[in-house]
Amino acid sequence: MASSSTDPNAPATIQITPTLLDEILDSTITLAHKAGDLILEGSLAIQSSHAAEESEKKNSVDLVTEYDVKVEELVKGELGKTWEGFKFIGEESYAAGSRPPLTNEPTFCVDPIDGTTNFIHGFPHSCVSIGLIYNKSPILGVIYNPHLDQLFYASKGNGAYLIQQGRKVKLPLAKPPKELKSLSKALIGVEWGSDRSLSLIQQKSASFSKLAGNPAEGVIGGQMAHSLRSLGSAALNYSMVAMGGLDIYWEIGCWPWDICAGSIIAQEAGGFVAGGHNAPLDNNVDEAVLNGRKYIVIRAIGDTPEEKGVDAQKRLIKEFYETVSDFEPK
Amino acid sequence: MASSSTDPNAPATIQITPTLLDEILDSTITLAHKAGDLILEGSLAIQSSHAAEESEKKNSVDLVTEYDVKVEELVKGELGKTWEGFKFIGEESYAAGSRPPLTNEPTFCVDPIDGTTNFIHGFPHSCVSIGLIYNKSPILGVIYNPHLDQLFYASKGNGAYLIQQGRKVKLPLAKPPKELKSLSKALIGVEWGSDRSLSLIQQKSASFSKLAGNPAEGVIGGQMAHSLRSLGSAALNYSMVAMGGLDIYWEIGCWPWDICAGSIIAQEAGGFVAGGHNAPLDNNVDEAVLNGRKYIVIRAIGDTPEEKGVDAQKRLIKEFYETVSDFEPK
Repeated sequence: MASSSTDPNAPATIQITPTLLDEILDSTITLAHKAGDLILEGSLAIQSSHAAEESEKKNSVDLVTEYDVKVEELVKGELGKTWEGFKFIGEESYAAGSRPPLTNEPTFCVDPIDGTTNFIHGFPHSCVSIGLIYNKSPILGVIYNPHLDQLFYASKGNGAYLIQQGRKVKLPLAKPPKELKSLSKALIGVEWGSDRSLSLIQQKSASFSKLAGNPAEGVIGGQMAHSLRSLGSAALNYSMVAMGGLDIYWEIGCWPWDICAGSIIAQEAGGFVAGGHNAPLDNNVDEAVLNGRKYIVIRAIGDTPEEKGVDAQKRLIKEFYETVSDFEPK
Repeated sequence: MASSSTDPNAPATIQITPTLLDEILDSTITLAHKAGDLILEGSLAIQSSHAAEESEKKNSVDLVTEYDVKVEELVKGELGKTWEGFKFIGEESYAAGSRPPLTNEPTFCVDPIDGTTNFIHGFPHSCVSIGLIYNKSPILGVIYNPHLDQLFYASKGNGAYLIQQGRKVKLPLAKPPKELKSLSKALIGVEWGSDRSLSLIQQKSASFSKLAGNPAEGVIGGQMAHSLRSLGSAALNYSMVAMGGLDIYWEIGCWPWDICAGSIIAQEAGGFVAGGHNAPLDNNVDEAVLNGRKYIVIRAIGDTPEEKGVDAQKRLIKEFYETVSDFEPK
């Protein structure tokens, strides 16, 4: 038999028991706070001294700083010391531009600073995002925004929580979950992203215009959503959906480390996660979804006499994908 | 001589001394916290019980709730009791759809809940915004976001501050202020607003596309800004510019109560405020700007050997207005 190092489908050699999962969660929350302190230190240093060396990944939009590397080294180092044998995929240490291959072994999947542009500008919506993948699906996620002291976390089967300024609340905030009858009632998270070519900008702006536009005032196919929001962090958009503050978040072009932790947090808060147009609607975040670079998440929806919440989630994702364009990320 | 009640240009009968301004600021900060508590209570009630009666102003986008009225009644009542003879303009009590006439008398200008759509959805970016206009220009502003416990304030000549979770910091956060050489380095706040007609959606999406688009990849006139953000609250966008977290915020269609407090906070943080295309670039928020429904604000910019900060502010506003469309709000 092939060993797990050569056969990506070999069974995991490390078993994650419920007790172990709890231990990993506790220590990851502590680590996220440490990483957050470093992010905050870096953000203040950049604002005050302009000392950060901003280098460019692809263009001026996609910035990376010395702190991105520092935070990843901290997180990778501590995880490696504590959880022997676990694999690690990080934004900085993984070669950019290709999909990381997955095995069934427990694998931390980390974005040291999600929302790097915000981080550099001092727009207080950047965070550390630490996910754990097991049998090729996320089973644990911790996202910490140190600027606002908001920590979102979840582990499989145990619900999702927000700790803000010392208070812990279960997600979503609305109990029972709110209704959502149509896209016209939705607050939707979208992002302009880093690919700014004519073709992509046209597809995005046409899609956003249809989501926002009023069909009664000339916008063909317009959904007249309540509005669109752009926070600039995929992990925090997932967190907002988990909270119930955003109804839907749609993205093309992210990588597994951007959405791994967010996916399990949203799912444990009753959210429904899927891939791109025509992806199966089974709320199963498998390798195809994780590495698919096309993502949609919709918040928990309460059952009504007319429709179960999960049916509303699927219906609204379908309607959403009938509204927006499909296109390929760079 | 005409009395101040009939002649809008009559000199103010109430004199605002520096000592009085300090007293007004202190009591307004206390009031903003009270109003914030009510906003938070309302937001939780809506999330948990769906009990809010959402009525519609113009369409499903422009929501108003019982809490909007409750908060305005609280703020108007307390201000009226404390500051006899001061005038009051509030979003809810003022007839919507026309510009409030100004006099030289001290006039509170209040948005009880700025970011109403966020408030209803539980997206944690709504706030109370209390401004004071005197001789037809803002001289004091207090903006409080209770969801994140962020309070922004300023009074004329005394600087701008953020109190977050008990810590007070002077704005902007960067000291000295950061450079900003071109729009390509800017993080820009824009909003989709409530007018969703074809014409308006086309102008907005074309403008946003030019701001974001890469001229080297086919977007004619593209500025390739770092990115665009949409928070959904004018008052908080001004606050983010005051902080230095956003570089520029541009808006068409707001009213004085949306931007009155934000204007003085941004100005006292070194920001530069102006009206629409072709408005004078003198950083003077007079009646024409307050009531002009077209607004732009740019953060404090540090002097460089090549260019003074204020010259950079004016140059970038000009470049911005050469990039985006001008259009009339509904």
